[in-house]
Amino acid sequence: MASFAREEHQFLAELGLAPRNPGSFACGAWGGSGPVVATTNPTNNEVIAEVVEASVDDYEKGMSACFDAARTWMAVPAPKRGEIVRQIGDALRAKLHHLGRLLSLEMGKILPEGIGEVQEIIDMCDYAVGLSRQLNGSIIPSERPNHMMMEVWNPLGVVGVITAFNFPCAVLGWNACIALVCGNCVVWKGAPTTPLITIAMTKIVASVFEKNNLPSAIFTAFCGGAEIGQAIALDTRIPLVSFTGSTKVGQMVQQQVSARFGKCLLELSGNNAIIVMDDADIPLAVRSVLFAAVGTAGQRCTTCRRLLLHESIYQTFLDQLVEVYKQVRIGDPMEKGTLLGPLHTTASKESFLKGIQTIRSQGGKILLGGSSIESEGNFVQPTIVEISPDAPVVREELFGPVLYAMKFQTLKEAIEINNSVPQGLSSSIFTRKPDAIFKWIG
Amino acid sequence: MASFAREEHQFLAELGLAPRNPGSFACGAWGGSGPVVATTNPTNNEVIAEVVEASVDDYEKGMSACFDAARTWMAVPAPKRGEIVRQIGDALRAKLHHLGRLLSLEMGKILPEGIGEVQEIIDMCDYAVGLSRQLNGSIIPSERPNHMMMEVWNPLGVVGVITAFNFPCAVLGWNACIALVCGNCVVWKGAPTTPLITIAMTKIVASVFEKNNLPSAIFTAFCGGAEIGQAIALDTRIPLVSFTGSTKVGQMVQQQVSARFGKCLLELSGNNAIIVMDDADIPLAVRSVLFAAVGTAGQRCTTCRRLLLHESIYQTFLDQLVEVYKQVRIGDPMEKGTLLGPLHTTASKESFLKGIQTIRSQGGKILLGGSSIESEGNFVQPTIVEISPDAPVVREELFGPVLYAMKFQTLKEAIEINNSVPQGLSSSIFTRKPDAIFKWIG
Amino acid sequence: MASFAREEHQFLAELGLAPRNPGSFACGAWGGSGPVVATTNPTNNEVIAEVVEASVDDYEKGMSACFDAARTWMAVPAPKRGEIVRQIGDALRAKLHHLGRLLSLEMGKILPEGIGEVQEIIDMCDYAVGLSRQLNGSIIPSERPNHMMMEVWNPLGVVGVITAFNFPCAVLGWNACIALVCGNCVVWKGAPTTPLITIAMTKIVASVFEKNNLPSAIFTAFCGGAEIGQAIALDTRIPLVSFTGSTKVGQMVQQQVSARFGKCLLELSGNNAIIVMDDADIPLAVRSVLFAAVGTAGQRCTTCRRLLLHESIYQTFLDQLVEVYKQVRIGDPMEKGTLLGPLHTTASKESFLKGIQTIRSQGGKILLGGSSIESEGNFVQPTIVEISPDAPVVREELFGPVLYAMKFQTLKEAIEINNSVPQGLSSSIFTRKPDAIFKWIG
Amino acid sequence: MASFAREEHQFLAELGLAPRNPGSFACGAWGGSGPVVATTNPTNNEVIAEVVEASVDDYEKGMSACFDAARTWMAVPAPKRGEIVRQIGDALRAKLHHLGRLLSLEMGKILPEGIGEVQEIIDMCDYAVGLSRQLNGSIIPSERPNHMMMEVWNPLGVVGVITAFNFPCAVLGWNACIALVCGNCVVWKGAPTTPLITIAMTKIVASVFEKNNLPSAIFTAFCGGAEIGQAIALDTRIPLVSFTGSTKVGQMVQQQVSARFGKCLLELSGNNAIIVMDDADIPLAVRSVLFAAVGTAGQRCTTCRRLLLHESIYQTFLDQLVEVYKQVRIGDPMEKGTLLGPLHTTASKESFLKGIQTIRSQGGKILLGGSSIESEGNFVQPTIVEISPDAPVVREELFGPVLYAMKFQTLKEAIEINNSVPQGLSSSIFTRKPDAIFKWIG
Repeated sequence: MASFAREEHQFLAELGLAPRNPGSFACGAWGGSGPVVATTNPTNNEVIAEVVEASVDDYEKGMSACFDAARTWMAVPAPKRGEIVRQIGDALRAKLHHLGRLLSLEMGKILPEGIGEVQEIIDMCDYAVGLSRQLNGSIIPSERPNHMMMEVWNPLGVVGVITAFNFPCAVLGWNACIALVCGNCVVWKGAPTTPLITIAMTKIVASVFEKNNLPSAIFTAFCGGAEIGQAIALDTRIPLVSFTGSTKVGQMVQQQVSARFGKCLLELSGNNAIIVMDDADIPLAVRSVLFAAVGTAGQRCTTCRRLLLHESIYQTFLDQLVEVYKQVRIGDPMEKGTLLGPLHTTASKESFLKGIQTIRSQGGKILLGGSSIESEGNFVQPTIVEISPDAPVVREELFGPVLYAMKFQTLKEAIEINNSVPQGLSSSIFTRKPDAIFKWIG
Repeated sequence: MASFAREEHQFLAELGLAPRNPGSFACGAWGGSGPVVATTNPTNNEVIAEVVEASVDDYEKGMSACFDAARTWMAVPAPKRGEIVRQIGDALRAKLHHLGRLLSLEMGKILPEGIGEVQEIIDMCDYAVGLSRQLNGSIIPSERPNHMMMEVWNPLGVVGVITAFNFPCAVLGWNACIALVCGNCVVWKGAPTTPLITIAMTKIVASVFEKNNLPSAIFTAFCGGAEIGQAIALDTRIPLVSFTGSTKVGQMVQQQVSARFGKCLLELSGNNAIIVMDDADIPLAVRSVLFAAVGTAGQRCTTCRRLLLHESIYQTFLDQLVEVYKQVRIGDPMEKGTLLGPLHTTASKESFLKGIQTIRSQGGKILLGGSSIESEGNFVQPTIVEISPDAPVVREELFGPVLYAMKFQTLKEAIEINNSVPQGLSSSIFTRKPDAIFKWIG
Repeated sequence: MASFAREEHQFLAELGLAPRNPGSFACGAWGGSGPVVATTNPTNNEVIAEVVEASVDDYEKGMSACFDAARTWMAVPAPKRGEIVRQIGDALRAKLHHLGRLLSLEMGKILPEGIGEVQEIIDMCDYAVGLSRQLNGSIIPSERPNHMMMEVWNPLGVVGVITAFNFPCAVLGWNACIALVCGNCVVWKGAPTTPLITIAMTKIVASVFEKNNLPSAIFTAFCGGAEIGQAIALDTRIPLVSFTGSTKVGQMVQQQVSARFGKCLLELSGNNAIIVMDDADIPLAVRSVLFAAVGTAGQRCTTCRRLLLHESIYQTFLDQLVEVYKQVRIGDPMEKGTLLGPLHTTASKESFLKGIQTIRSQGGKILLGGSSIESEGNFVQPTIVEISPDAPVVREELFGPVLYAMKFQTLKEAIEINNSVPQGLSSSIFTRKPDAIFKWIG
Repeated sequence: MASFAREEHQFLAELGLAPRNPGSFACGAWGGSGPVVATTNPTNNEVIAEVVEASVDDYEKGMSACFDAARTWMAVPAPKRGEIVRQIGDALRAKLHHLGRLLSLEMGKILPEGIGEVQEIIDMCDYAVGLSRQLNGSIIPSERPNHMMMEVWNPLGVVGVITAFNFPCAVLGWNACIALVCGNCVVWKGAPTTPLITIAMTKIVASVFEKNNLPSAIFTAFCGGAEIGQAIALDTRIPLVSFTGSTKVGQMVQQQVSARFGKCLLELSGNNAIIVMDDADIPLAVRSVLFAAVGTAGQRCTTCRRLLLHESIYQTFLDQLVEVYKQVRIGDPMEKGTLLGPLHTTASKESFLKGIQTIRSQGGKILLGGSSIESEGNFVQPTIVEISPDAPVVREELFGPVLYAMKFQTLKEAIEINNSVPQGLSSSIFTRKPDAIFKWIG
């Protein structure tokens, strides 16, 4: 791979990555008998490295060891489990900048976002350490004299974590840190297009288990696609599966897991709105919308996709917004000053372009952007669209930097528009009126 | 007593009160070997009834029985204790209006406030019932393998409750309802000037213990003054004493209780401010200040005593406030439409008049009121004073309807004035700016 | 109906029931355009009364009104909602004995169990009243200076509750009391074979809403079968469905509800074991097993179905158990002294008999019972079976008074047997060793 | 000082200590204008180093800076404060062994205990980091429509911490770690006889504030005696004072602090019992009693001072206990294998000898020990005494390795003996009966 030759990519080696990497960490050892895939840099679509994915056989062997390790891990006292997680946090902290760069290289998000995401999993570790001394059960006085009830929390055994390309570190952190201090083993499947991150993270975590003479199978990880995800969803040894990804796949996973009376944590699509009232601090709101709509190239589940503007400030706001959009620096996400990197894959770019066509066909008016950018990478223009809230495309999640601007007259109307899409997740309001704030919350 | 002859006072008999009442409820029986005192109606200073107070001997006998009853009561399962408290709530609910009228008659607060206060203790009962199933201990995972720690809440035994004249029901409720469901007996000393309320309340509570064949000594009550309060403070069998009253006496109680390693809950003076910013809803704020400063004739620990007005609305606000003050209907608190009843005692009236003299001598300008009202009762005028925040009198708690108006320029300045008095308790702000609200809170 | 003529059934009229009853309480009014069904007394299979079930049309109208009422109800402050639930508790308390007899008559459980179950919903009301003042959100300090996060709990809207014949009151209570204080409307479908209970309960609840001038549609109830259950499961206006019943139907409901991203609370089958160690207090354990295996005629989800006996006390224990089984008084559940009433329906009796055949065919040895009892009702004998833990029938839930006795040598073995069935729910151990207790819990 | 010349004391320099050390860390700088004191090694009473104590002047200057720093520190977001405490934990971890040796050298506890105590403050840091994201306030639904109440936790400002010689690190940790993440500054006064520990700890903490460009005055520390303690107790700028030490001084501090309406956390004397029932695991109990009575040379507030033995195992138990006592290795606490080091000061040794005289004069029979040991240090023999529970000396806290053995017949009697002393703190029971365990807890 050319990538490994470059001086600026030296951090790959320091993260333990090679031109060709086994992608199955099972029974505490690296292997992989699945297909060999190439992972590419979204900035120029060059191959970074090759990865040998896990096969279903690898999965079976790994899960078996993980299931066995569960007995060991759940017998470790909770505060000692917290100490392991603290060491994981420290091991990640030591590689913060290397991991941040890897995120930027393989996923395509800008470097400060990459570093910020790794910091998030570190923070989760610190938080989980505290929790490791708070896993209290209850002693409940009974109605019957001289009786009492005891409620004790026992580990589930093994928790499955399936994560998506857009937050390949942080989402693992939310799930794995809590799962581990609670005494559960973790089986992780990262996204098929970010295998190097999966491998680099797993190496760091595994080193801590090794140093403490604990079975590395406590944390088992697989690079792979739908087959492995499927196996996790159907595996009766995994009572809890956390899934992050598309609504469509999430629904399928949930049906499979609940059919076997397992439980699911789902983190699916969003279609978030920002409402700007007539009394809002406009410059503050403009900056916030820019960050919310263009950050991570619009590939967050919390990306702002709909901008609801009070009619009295509608035009002023859009004028200012267009102005700041024009100044957005597009380019290599690892370069200082870049605000907008490429979409994650060429497929993402195509999907963006197809979305723009649909928008136009449904009466959307492109105020800015709307095209891809000539380059070897997956760059597209940050895009603002004027469109009716009734256009069907508004109800879908177009995973890219496309913002729908709409006009409203009253807060009530704005809240109705906000709630008119099937996906809820996060929305926000800019106003100075406490009344409006509390109406919004309530 | 003339009082008992009057048809409108028939409720006294229905509450079990007579022209002469034993005022010591010890060992589950009424008695009293202390001095005979007369309780009077603050509206006309006529005697309502006589009460034989408890002596220290009565106290000793009663406490001994209460201490014994503690073993029985703590062995009753918490949810059953909750059921008793539920029945107390129902018994109070059945007498809500009678009790409310008694409060109005003996304490002098207007009837809606009297009924509202009884409702508060009923609400406390309902709330405590829920708590009776939530007194959970904890099971805490240990650092050591195969160990765990258990944390269980045991009753203290006996809780002492000393209440003041201004809230003779509600404050009992806060303390006794929680103490009882937690498995503690209660020793109550009400204010010396509201003995009928103490007796009527105790009769209702005791009837519930009797009906359930539980020792009435679980709830022991004494009418009396400093001697009984002293006895409670010094009694090593009472690990927790709740005291409501003046800062001076409270401090003494605390020193005595803590000298014997007991614990205190103190509810002492307040010197509360309302800050009105330039952007406030003025009519809303005017009504609120009226209610906060004149309600209960200014005899709440949460009475608003200081009004901090932004200079830009200072004069407008005061003009409107004087206007609504002039419309306050003063008179018999039991009559419909009365907004301001008498002060509680003739001593309170004298203290009000002395306070007005001090105010004048320290440069205070009386904008409205400032005198007592010719009558047989303890009525005084609702009073508004313009005064510097630096006048020493502002730092004292004058227990009556006296409001100090002051001007400020910035929120920072207002907060400094607010915090410049030794007594904190409750303060509030009127503004429409979220910034100001959160600055205020933080 | 003969039933209504009998003096001892006069309580039916006092509960508002008639020989023929509309079974749809929608939009605050009674109606029903579904099939007419007869509800029968399991003791003699005589018809008690007729009920006109709800049709899907009734459901649609009712749900629409309920959905509208949700806006009103969620705007009622939580403590006021608590006050309504408190009044519901009091209204049920006033009819405690009538309702208990109705449970005994229509469901077939013995009278003390009937009354106990109604008491349970009353207790739930009391508990929920306390909760109504504890629905606190959080204010969370942020990483960013001068920022904070607020977490507020909003009502879901409408909660669906589908209950089973065996606990036709209590399970409603667990769900509806909490749902109501949290600000949610309730749509209830009771079991098709206990419609009179559904109607009687609903009348009591509705009377409270009426007295408080609140829309009765806040509590909407339907008598009916799978069609109504289906409608609830598929209704996107119902974000949360609580289902109690068979594992098979529960699984179906869950798939349907989660397919539309709704949430489910499932209360399904159990296959509970009691483990008796060699050091156990045998007489205490014998009585407990009797109560756990024969109570409610073995028709509880928490019925003890498997008895795991340490080999050293195996025979002694069984001998004593057989002795107490022989003394169980079987008969009309409303009669004093009866310990075992009939199974709920003739179908239940047939299923019991079929189960006994299967047991025999799989090598089970009937130690006692094993037959139905000649009568007009659905009576069967309390049954003890000696069987291998490996027999497939042991892994199924036979809903009747059948107990499987098994032998073990070590606690480890006993725990393995306990966990070898697909249904978990509740299990217990009798021992005097703290080690064993904590091993059991952990 | 000879001490600094020795190779084995090189760690003193690595902790930043010198033959003469300023002992006032005020305004972020080291100084001291109080008396010069020598700190000695209890093993041989040689001087380790000199310390210049803080004067009241130093205190005033330091507190003023600390009070100012409070505004800065409370404005730092809680999770960032957590990050500082995490770094403090890491800085302590880096010096774990040096600090542990310093504890052993200056306080006299054996090395594993010294290291264990430093580990405790490190664990507290880790725990507090988690808390820094959990300082949640509440949003409470109101009775009034469209109202809600907010409850927010604000820092107190400055917390005073006065610690004792026996746990010079850990007790600081319990208080300071929590105080700091909650946004409070800390003023610390260590014990007059462990100034080097105070200085070494403070240097480490201060280095973290410096590295993060935060005012070091956030953590202000003074070596000194009663004068400084007094100043803290009387200082109205310190709303909360944590005091650990003798009951007599603690009471005085509490009276002073509460007189100014401040709050106290007191950790005073203990007089702890171990009850051994007839069914107990004797070898386990013997080992535990040894550890509990002789550990830290009996100078813990949780030291076991009273051994309550069931009459049926009384003699057997004592025989075995005497046997293990005889094997206790006494000597230099820093040497491997030592189990019992010296008492902290020569005064402690004298007080031990005086206590033995009193014991004899009250009928106590010395079964083992009872003398000091000839040496240059403060060594005494581990001592077992047979004595009546009624002897007055049993009710006092003799701070040394003296254990009172007593006989009982029933659990009830044992619990009464246990509760017959004025000091409660921690007690324990050895039994295999769950009944006894739960009777004990409840």
